[in-house]
Amino acid sequence: MTKLNVTQKLIKEHLLEGEMLAGKEIGIKIDQALLQDATGTLVQLELEAMGLKKAQTEVAVQYVDHNLLQTDFKNADDHLFLLSAAQRFGLWYSRPGNGVSHPVHMQRFGKPGKTMIGSDSHTPAAGSLGMLAIGTGGLDVAAAIAGQPYFVKMPAVMGVKLTGKLPDWVSAKDVILEMLRRYDVKGGVGKVIEYYGDGLQQMSAMDRHVIANMGAELGATTTVFPSDEETKRFLKSQEREGDWSELKADEGCSYDFEDEIILDDLIPLIALPTSPGNVVPVREVEGKPISQVVIGSSANPGLRDFWMAGAIVKDKSVNNDVSLDINPTSRQLIQNMIDNKAFANLIKAGARFHQSGCMGCIGMGQAPASNTISLRTMPRNFPDRSGTEDDQVYLCSPETAAASALTGKITDPRDLEKLYGMSYPQFEKPEIEIINTDMLVAPLEDGTGVELKKGPNIQSLPHIDPILNDYEIPVLLKMGDNVSTDEILKAGAEVLPFRSNLPEISKYSFTVIDDTFYDRAMKAKNDFGGHIVVAKDNYAQGSSREHAALAPKYLGQVAVIANSYARIAWQNLANFGILPLEFIDIKDYEKIEQGDKVKFSNLTRDVISRNDIKVIVEKQNGKREEFLTKHTLSDRQIDILVKGGIINDFKEKLDQKNLKA
Amino acid sequence: MTKLNVTQKLIKEHLLEGEMLAGKEIGIKIDQALLQDATGTLVQLELEAMGLKKAQTEVAVQYVDHNLLQTDFKNADDHLFLLSAAQRFGLWYSRPGNGVSHPVHMQRFGKPGKTMIGSDSHTPAAGSLGMLAIGTGGLDVAAAIAGQPYFVKMPAVMGVKLTGKLPDWVSAKDVILEMLRRYDVKGGVGKVIEYYGDGLQQMSAMDRHVIANMGAELGATTTVFPSDEETKRFLKSQEREGDWSELKADEGCSYDFEDEIILDDLIPLIALPTSPGNVVPVREVEGKPISQVVIGSSANPGLRDFWMAGAIVKDKSVNNDVSLDINPTSRQLIQNMIDNKAFANLIKAGARFHQSGCMGCIGMGQAPASNTISLRTMPRNFPDRSGTEDDQVYLCSPETAAASALTGKITDPRDLEKLYGMSYPQFEKPEIEIINTDMLVAPLEDGTGVELKKGPNIQSLPHIDPILNDYEIPVLLKMGDNVSTDEILKAGAEVLPFRSNLPEISKYSFTVIDDTFYDRAMKAKNDFGGHIVVAKDNYAQGSSREHAALAPKYLGQVAVIANSYARIAWQNLANFGILPLEFIDIKDYEKIEQGDKVKFSNLTRDVISRNDIKVIVEKQNGKREEFLTKHTLSDRQIDILVKGGIINDFKEKLDQKNLKA
Repeated sequence: MTKLNVTQKLIKEHLLEGEMLAGKEIGIKIDQALLQDATGTLVQLELEAMGLKKAQTEVAVQYVDHNLLQTDFKNADDHLFLLSAAQRFGLWYSRPGNGVSHPVHMQRFGKPGKTMIGSDSHTPAAGSLGMLAIGTGGLDVAAAIAGQPYFVKMPAVMGVKLTGKLPDWVSAKDVILEMLRRYDVKGGVGKVIEYYGDGLQQMSAMDRHVIANMGAELGATTTVFPSDEETKRFLKSQEREGDWSELKADEGCSYDFEDEIILDDLIPLIALPTSPGNVVPVREVEGKPISQVVIGSSANPGLRDFWMAGAIVKDKSVNNDVSLDINPTSRQLIQNMIDNKAFANLIKAGARFHQSGCMGCIGMGQAPASNTISLRTMPRNFPDRSGTEDDQVYLCSPETAAASALTGKITDPRDLEKLYGMSYPQFEKPEIEIINTDMLVAPLEDGTGVELKKGPNIQSLPHIDPILNDYEIPVLLKMGDNVSTDEILKAGAEVLPFRSNLPEISKYSFTVIDDTFYDRAMKAKNDFGGHIVVAKDNYAQGSSREHAALAPKYLGQVAVIANSYARIAWQNLANFGILPLEFIDIKDYEKIEQGDKVKFSNLTRDVISRNDIKVIVEKQNGKREEFLTKHTLSDRQIDILVKGGIINDFKEKLDQKNLKA
Repeated sequence: MTKLNVTQKLIKEHLLEGEMLAGKEIGIKIDQALLQDATGTLVQLELEAMGLKKAQTEVAVQYVDHNLLQTDFKNADDHLFLLSAAQRFGLWYSRPGNGVSHPVHMQRFGKPGKTMIGSDSHTPAAGSLGMLAIGTGGLDVAAAIAGQPYFVKMPAVMGVKLTGKLPDWVSAKDVILEMLRRYDVKGGVGKVIEYYGDGLQQMSAMDRHVIANMGAELGATTTVFPSDEETKRFLKSQEREGDWSELKADEGCSYDFEDEIILDDLIPLIALPTSPGNVVPVREVEGKPISQVVIGSSANPGLRDFWMAGAIVKDKSVNNDVSLDINPTSRQLIQNMIDNKAFANLIKAGARFHQSGCMGCIGMGQAPASNTISLRTMPRNFPDRSGTEDDQVYLCSPETAAASALTGKITDPRDLEKLYGMSYPQFEKPEIEIINTDMLVAPLEDGTGVELKKGPNIQSLPHIDPILNDYEIPVLLKMGDNVSTDEILKAGAEVLPFRSNLPEISKYSFTVIDDTFYDRAMKAKNDFGGHIVVAKDNYAQGSSREHAALAPKYLGQVAVIANSYARIAWQNLANFGILPLEFIDIKDYEKIEQGDKVKFSNLTRDVISRNDIKVIVEKQNGKREEFLTKHTLSDRQIDILVKGGIINDFKEKLDQKNLKA
């Protein structure tokens, strides 16, 4: 492996633990961290609970782009909290309205050769600059900010060669849609997609962003581009030429998988409801009437994209039956759009301008009318994501979106030539963009004195005790197979607003199964010091949400006894200090019932020593049963678990390194 | 009364019924009608139920400015419905994002000498152009659109003489705040406020709009300005010089009340939480820390207002602790703001731009952080209107708002001179504004063939039967004194979304008192053809919402028997076909209980003949009681009532005039 591709170079440069063999766990050094507001509040509370003194990454930025509608006090309270936390822990703070995290990060902080993790699934967008940027859960990001390595399975690398030149009316979005047409939404799992080839010359850094961003929809670990002359030009346009360095694959390097896209052959593509992988040529669905077009989001964030839409609608008028919604990427973008007339062209033609942020892309407003088609330049069209149950969201390029806004039906933008006598508008990249850093609040040199501003819905994470040796605690639930995290802690509009309020969100634990659970758990915690629950196979399947472990732990859950666990949930249980025990003989499942009491003796000792763990059951009828259980945790996990979870573990590590406040 | 003031001239010119004696009911011809989306869907459903062929007013406009967030399908469905209804019934349609109704109406349709009613309380803003413009309930607007006169008590006229010249840093908002300081929120009740005097010369038409708009907060029937050279200049700037005509008070005319404001003496004022009448000098509260500033709304909609804010923050930066939110008035305004650099100045300084509309002014987003101060150029700061329960909303001028956004605390704008060495920016009115009418959809010549587009939450009003002669129906509720419309049909976020869905909103009838009511009423409707309810004094006090009569009627309510009624609710009951009976002897209240059955014979005959109406009560214990009741309806009301309500009445009238489709 002397000749390396870009991905391998990035990993090699940052490798702290493990070997670079596809599928093997590696630990890498993280240079940058990205947080957004929807996930960031919990991360900041985790940093608080760890007692972190100051962020250890080179750059960490707290963005506010997801929750901007402020339909009640909670969003605005979160904004004040996040600013105070960024100041406290040494992060940059990008103020509400400053823009969408991914493009703003690329413009202001992205740097070739660096690694980044972010608590947002589109973090890979930064791969456009020759970074290794991975989206992950909040706790991983908190750990990285606290200076820990990031652990991930060494991905396979798929090299995609771009050759030739895009035809008129076809743009970067069509390239990633072509990838989705070929590989669908799981084709990238376990892989980094690395683009190379002559076709890159035509792709601006922001075009690359479009492709890297929506690479998330392939299920890829991330997407990587080389850092070349175009990368340099881009950084220069942001007055950051000094941050550029070259990063190219070695001549003759190899890839685990290979593919090629001949750009000349591409035509305008579109993803049909309700999957980004459901891609067909625009021609196949042209003529369908539409009610909405939304242009914006991190999947088409560039000045070119908005300028193109403006150039297409210039001196024309949006169709009467269509709402053309424009979500400008950032404050800086708006200034540049004013400068190059894109803003006035769009407004004049009838566009509705919204504040800079994710908006409808993550279902925050802009829900389309019932049973009508919405065309969006966004990355996702999962069912109901738009906020309208029977939505019909199609994903396409700005060219296709703007053309359709004029005609009122899905339109192949190539038809603009005959419909309006239009030739393909040619975007001139400004040598230097108007730069606006006014709403980026710099980190403090020493923030240890800053007080966290917590509105009534923001609660510090409570201290969690380590696991004890002896328990005599009730069995609060006995469940069957395939219990999902939605049953453990449901999602949805009623529950999500409490994600920064553990005492409150905990009230929803297991309500789907038994709405007396919370009261019974609080009583068991007070009377006996905790409880356990019992299940059969594939416990806690479904989403990766950490609250499905954090909330039961808060309610005193000491252990789960199940026959088997879903992978991510099993990790989460250990991370948050709940012991995931397994039946050794599944017949023992019959020996234990809801309402029984279980006794553990020398639990900590047995966990550490990997002894079988004896469960003594005091049945409600006065009888007594006993059986053996085991766990399959790694040494690292055992260490974390007995301390009461990963936050306690970090707290200790930060203490040792003198990184605590 | 040979020498007339402007108000009297406007009324005299439009008088159809009654005498111009303060307090006496008059009927006036209505030239223009204004609808917004929150109230407009029901009005359009009423026009549908009446079977109207085409709007009879000179101009009727359906605006969409209140509900723009689209957090689910309902807003977007409403927009499609309103467009189809505007086309069907011959109204203009101002598309979502085109702007706030009042300033857009003034710019595009307002005309000196005309009358207008609107289903929005700030309709009086059009008084800035020498119109008589009154805010009222939806059914009145539907009636006016169908060509009926508008009935109102002849108001007293208060003449307010403006003399002198406003000092630097003091603007129109401070004039209306001074009026609110003097008269508080009820000081204008039953009055038209008419401004005159030399001080007007300095007041642009948009300045007058500020004063007329927020005159609603005085409780005034409306506010009126003369139409003078400034009015002409304004219309010319909108390329509508031809719509101008002069309208001035006769020399030596008189007013029922008189007051004077010496403009030179005014200083920056501010309304404290939680009433627009709670006005003090800014100096009294300066220095308080703030978290939000919002500039916009129909109470400060002019180009000057935004330009001023932009000039103040130019090349400076919004305080780190403040969110500066800008709600541009209209698409046209945005184009002009781009042109005069106000837009770039504000964006550069850190403002968050929102779509054109009412937004936070009516609690649609922009809720401030808990227990923090929000400064707004809006007209109202009632408790919780912002969406944050413990809000602290202060109302002030754009000058005060922009100054405070820079300093992060409430700031008298006069201090900008010493703080920043700034002199008062001088706004140059453009001779011709950039005009944008692209998003105004013109009415059709013949819309009878247009189909109404109804999403699942929009339901036609059901046909309502006229009152019958004989009933034998149950008493479903027996209530006490002071039952409010909130108890009859509660408001709030759970219920309001169903305001265009009578079958659905009816499910909330009386739930505050008894949540079995809906089921019992539907059963009574099916089994017996209706029901009655009984109450004591002051029945249906509180808000004027028409749904508190419409919903019980839909559930089969034939009559209420009460000792007395709140005035507006009593009218609403009659308008929607529920018979408001009164006990002749209050002791009879004891003779009737919930669960009893009542018998009416020859009811229609007795109502029309004004006979006492005999109520025979079949008690649950098998006994029988009887007593007499009466009604105090006018002939016009009797006529409406026996037809089943005003919609049936209009239907008949439109038939006679051949105005039905």
